[in-house]
Amino acid sequence: MACGFEIVARDAGTKARRGVLHLAHGDVETPAFMPVGTQATVKALEPRDLKAEDAQIILSNTYHLFLRPGAETIAAAGGLHRFMGWNRPILTDSGGFQVFSLAKIRKLTPEGVVFNSHIDGHEFFMGPKESMEMQRVIGSDIAMVFDECLPYPCDRARAEKSVETTLGWARMSLEAPHAEGQQVFGIVQGGVYDDLRRHCAEELVKMDFPGYAIGGVSVGEPEAEMYQAVEACVPFLPEEKPRYVMGLGVPHQMAQCVARGIDMFDCVLPTRIARHGTAVTRAGNVAIKAAQWARDFGPVEEGCECYCCRNFSRAYVRHLLNAGEILGVRLLTIHNVHRLLETMREIRVSISDGSFADILNSKLTTKETK
Amino acid sequence: MACGFEIVARDAGTKARRGVLHLAHGDVETPAFMPVGTQATVKALEPRDLKAEDAQIILSNTYHLFLRPGAETIAAAGGLHRFMGWNRPILTDSGGFQVFSLAKIRKLTPEGVVFNSHIDGHEFFMGPKESMEMQRVIGSDIAMVFDECLPYPCDRARAEKSVETTLGWARMSLEAPHAEGQQVFGIVQGGVYDDLRRHCAEELVKMDFPGYAIGGVSVGEPEAEMYQAVEACVPFLPEEKPRYVMGLGVPHQMAQCVARGIDMFDCVLPTRIARHGTAVTRAGNVAIKAAQWARDFGPVEEGCECYCCRNFSRAYVRHLLNAGEILGVRLLTIHNVHRLLETMREIRVSISDGSFADILNSKLTTKETK
Repeated sequence: MACGFEIVARDAGTKARRGVLHLAHGDVETPAFMPVGTQATVKALEPRDLKAEDAQIILSNTYHLFLRPGAETIAAAGGLHRFMGWNRPILTDSGGFQVFSLAKIRKLTPEGVVFNSHIDGHEFFMGPKESMEMQRVIGSDIAMVFDECLPYPCDRARAEKSVETTLGWARMSLEAPHAEGQQVFGIVQGGVYDDLRRHCAEELVKMDFPGYAIGGVSVGEPEAEMYQAVEACVPFLPEEKPRYVMGLGVPHQMAQCVARGIDMFDCVLPTRIARHGTAVTRAGNVAIKAAQWARDFGPVEEGCECYCCRNFSRAYVRHLLNAGEILGVRLLTIHNVHRLLETMREIRVSISDGSFADILNSKLTTKETK
Repeated sequence: MACGFEIVARDAGTKARRGVLHLAHGDVETPAFMPVGTQATVKALEPRDLKAEDAQIILSNTYHLFLRPGAETIAAAGGLHRFMGWNRPILTDSGGFQVFSLAKIRKLTPEGVVFNSHIDGHEFFMGPKESMEMQRVIGSDIAMVFDECLPYPCDRARAEKSVETTLGWARMSLEAPHAEGQQVFGIVQGGVYDDLRRHCAEELVKMDFPGYAIGGVSVGEPEAEMYQAVEACVPFLPEEKPRYVMGLGVPHQMAQCVARGIDMFDCVLPTRIARHGTAVTRAGNVAIKAAQWARDFGPVEEGCECYCCRNFSRAYVRHLLNAGEILGVRLLTIHNVHRLLETMREIRVSISDGSFADILNSKLTTKETK
């Protein structure tokens, strides 16, 4: 299948590469971080906020949109881009992860999963056909194949069986009707078993997807195992196609994955921890609610150019958070999304100018403070 | 005391007048609606949103800021304008209403009130001296005198005693130190007793405030009694000074008060009902969460020029509200604040061009639908 991916620069010392992904709603520079808009909104933000911080692509969740507002409403709106007023690229996950983590599974068949909605308990069926149909209606630029997500840890026998299910569903997903211009990415599963990861990658590559994700990482395993899973997949994925690690958004972990040849990331982290009053900064996470900031009139992060840091103080944001004001969550969300997008911008520039090693060895790569 | 109020047009058939209030941080056109920013933010909005919808002045609550973040933080920030990033006028209420409605009163003395905070039960003292000092630190353009707010209903003896307390506190408030350029408005109390209202107004006028509020209305009394209280005060307040009905924000009630000679209003209504999923429209209140809007891709209000209506559909806002997304509340807040500001703009224009009677007899003045 045609792949709209161009590699424009490579790092000499690692597998890091800089590229451009050509999608139906525009270009995306890689390595890219995708803010997550689960329910047709990146929580607390408007499309204009995302554009102001220069998000080039967002992710939305097929499972959530399938349940609410549902396919009929999205179809009547003319797709998700129109429904939410976002005219840049959207990637949709398949719903597999949510079905297996949020919903109550009633029955697993070769065609999919019977589950109870986490919202009201209503019973639904979703398999590759249903997921791809929902993604077709959504009209995302990149659709993901429907896959089975394994818990961590998971024994070998179960992982083996699951990889076969995932491969069958990948083929069914690829063969289902898609929206015009929609690309479909495969997802490599296989848990902590390197040979299963390799097998899954090789079989998916035979199906010739325009891009490949590595799934089932960042699910609670130690960091070393996460990198091992990435390393077990990358050599068996085509060099000229984009690679995406799903669900990862910790700055130093993204940098480490970029060094291992990864191009795309998504994570609810920046928006979720903002709602808990935590700022992502170059020096690690900072609890803005803490008393120490009560009369600190500097910005949330010194030198940051986001809307929050240009206009408001730590003391003010802290006050808003402690007073339960929506604006506090909103301002911190803007900052956190900006921080991750800015990190990716710096990584892209560093790959072009030969300084990627500096970023990899910088504070970014240290463990976060809490 | 000098009064920076100019009357620029009068309605021929009613007491309505159009004016400009010259304040330390800029001019305010009247009749004016002031969105309420209780805790140093108009809930869910940023200063840039308020400017985009052309709010010329906001109200903030001295009681809330006194408790959190407290005078020391506001002082360290250099006043409320700097703390919250709003450089247009601010009016602060005195805290009297909240002390008597939100807090637990421990003791009432000629100097003020001992009360327990509604946040954590801590004991505080606030009287005219403390309220004016807090308002001085805040640096509001208009400070209100500290007054006793009566419950509704209230017997004559209690109302009489309360008016004397309020008059004593008004004098103490006027004599306390103020911020540079800060105007202090008196507040007429007296409940439903016309002669007490007149007495209170006359005594306050002797103290020569640059503006006068009518307090203790919109506290649960029938609409007719509210207008009666306004009519009982206005003839005894100076024609050349601004008049302000506190806590009122229902469009047709504001129009009726304008017809009775009132220039200023404030209310939490547009922001509060937005959080409950209700839109204020020309035709009355509309529950946007209702199923009938699920696939309605028109704006929240046809013909509305607010940011929400220009960019998003009822179906989308409904989805956000039903999914518990902050953005839903935010968009509806923007619309509701715009609606009330727009209503006041239309009233101002109508006073100039002789069409105020049309507004007074329009749908605006009908009872709201729910």
